[in-house]
Amino acid sequence: MQLVRLGAAGDERPFVRAGDGALYDLSGLTADITGAWLAGDGPARAAAALDAGELPAAGPEAAGLRVGPPIAAPGKIVCIGMNYRRHAEETGAAVPSEPVLFMKAPDVIVGPHDDVLIPRESTSTDWEVELGVVIGKQARYLDRVEDALAHVAGYVLSNDVSEREFQIHRGGQWDKGKNCETFNPLGPVLVTADEVPDPQALGLRTWVNAKLVQDSKTSDMVFSVAEIVHYLSQFMVLRPGDLINTGTPEGVALGQPEPKPYLREGDVVELEIDGLGRQRQTMGQA
Amino acid sequence: MQLVRLGAAGDERPFVRAGDGALYDLSGLTADITGAWLAGDGPARAAAALDAGELPAAGPEAAGLRVGPPIAAPGKIVCIGMNYRRHAEETGAAVPSEPVLFMKAPDVIVGPHDDVLIPRESTSTDWEVELGVVIGKQARYLDRVEDALAHVAGYVLSNDVSEREFQIHRGGQWDKGKNCETFNPLGPVLVTADEVPDPQALGLRTWVNAKLVQDSKTSDMVFSVAEIVHYLSQFMVLRPGDLINTGTPEGVALGQPEPKPYLREGDVVELEIDGLGRQRQTMGQA
Repeated sequence: MQLVRLGAAGDERPFVRAGDGALYDLSGLTADITGAWLAGDGPARAAAALDAGELPAAGPEAAGLRVGPPIAAPGKIVCIGMNYRRHAEETGAAVPSEPVLFMKAPDVIVGPHDDVLIPRESTSTDWEVELGVVIGKQARYLDRVEDALAHVAGYVLSNDVSEREFQIHRGGQWDKGKNCETFNPLGPVLVTADEVPDPQALGLRTWVNAKLVQDSKTSDMVFSVAEIVHYLSQFMVLRPGDLINTGTPEGVALGQPEPKPYLREGDVVELEIDGLGRQRQTMGQA
Repeated sequence: MQLVRLGAAGDERPFVRAGDGALYDLSGLTADITGAWLAGDGPARAAAALDAGELPAAGPEAAGLRVGPPIAAPGKIVCIGMNYRRHAEETGAAVPSEPVLFMKAPDVIVGPHDDVLIPRESTSTDWEVELGVVIGKQARYLDRVEDALAHVAGYVLSNDVSEREFQIHRGGQWDKGKNCETFNPLGPVLVTADEVPDPQALGLRTWVNAKLVQDSKTSDMVFSVAEIVHYLSQFMVLRPGDLINTGTPEGVALGQPEPKPYLREGDVVELEIDGLGRQRQTMGQA
């Protein structure tokens, strides 16, 4: 099932997008797509209601609404760095022996087609297409990697926008280049885990001004989604609604020869992951 | 004014603690001490109601309630590293030329007297007494350091608990040792900014098993609260209710000679900052 949130920023309402593209109003079942709703078997109840013909079809105005991020603000965003072999190579880093972890604040999430703002004083704003993982059931000190995917509610397309000078050259810790305003376009849809039988078999791509720049598969990940969820649960409690950005493949501006093609005002970034839809952002100036 | 939240975890209610220690019930004015309430002049209205004798005195049972963190979960926790000159020295790091930034997730906050859990596989759990700054008014690209303190709602005692092996030796980025369950005791009180005329003139101290281990003043900060708020606003939007942990002074276990006295189950950590109250945590095992 595909879950979407439509409406003005901060005022989105939940819908289901059926296989034929038709939209059905979910707001009779839940006011929003939250961690609590995901944990409380909300998606299963929504699917049952859809199958039973109990969800009202959305009015024609729904198709014209802004597409918001498909989940309400998560409690946290945990990001994995250097998690594709060829991305580690392009940046000159060693393939990590265990997952590299950094954080984004939830308030940097925007919709998949919202403008992304280049920060003031930025020289090096970069794109990162990533498979986003939304937690559906609390994960705390999981015993086995094999149990990890049962804690995933679904998958979402995520752009882990990054300012490389802030991240690398402004005094330690990547978070400084990861938390600028609008730096995490998310969506358009949350696809429930039952419809993604193998999260390690997805193609993911980015275009900048219509030129293909990232084109890889999640099979190139150093650590799989299951390994990441299991690993993170040894260091923190993953709660329903939390988002994990699982790393980006090769093809970011940072990995190109000088002069690196960092983003400028007016550039258009498009991203997609097989089965998870497509994003399109125009770069603005903060 | 001192704001407190009392009650079971997740079910706290807001109170004012008056100068004589008496508690007054705030729940008629607000259901909780949130960013929106801080931004909407909530503290000024609470002070006016207190002065006018309009706040009901808390019943005798209030004094027996658990003390929660004095703010509802913030949108984000931004932490400053290496921000005391003598702490940078003790850890062998250079005094930073600009603020070092890392993140904690809001769900690691606990009350000031709640147990702190030593993570499984931990060898190096450490204490960090810190001045916490709560944002009261959005700060985005502030022009002048002089304007920064007008964006602060108040101050709070914060323990930025840290696992040093996870932080330093487990594959890059400090966040891995900063986001374990229960790793940010906060409170007991939020003291509004009008009662802290100079945030750079506060003594702060930590005791472990009754032995004084940290004893410094916020005047040793490399970057002042005003400089930090101004600086952060160039990299991210600070929103009402957000928490900034402004760094710890010397005296952490990491800075001691081998064998470093990292925390063990049953250890008792007490912390205080002048005017902001006192915390006491017993170390448990996750």
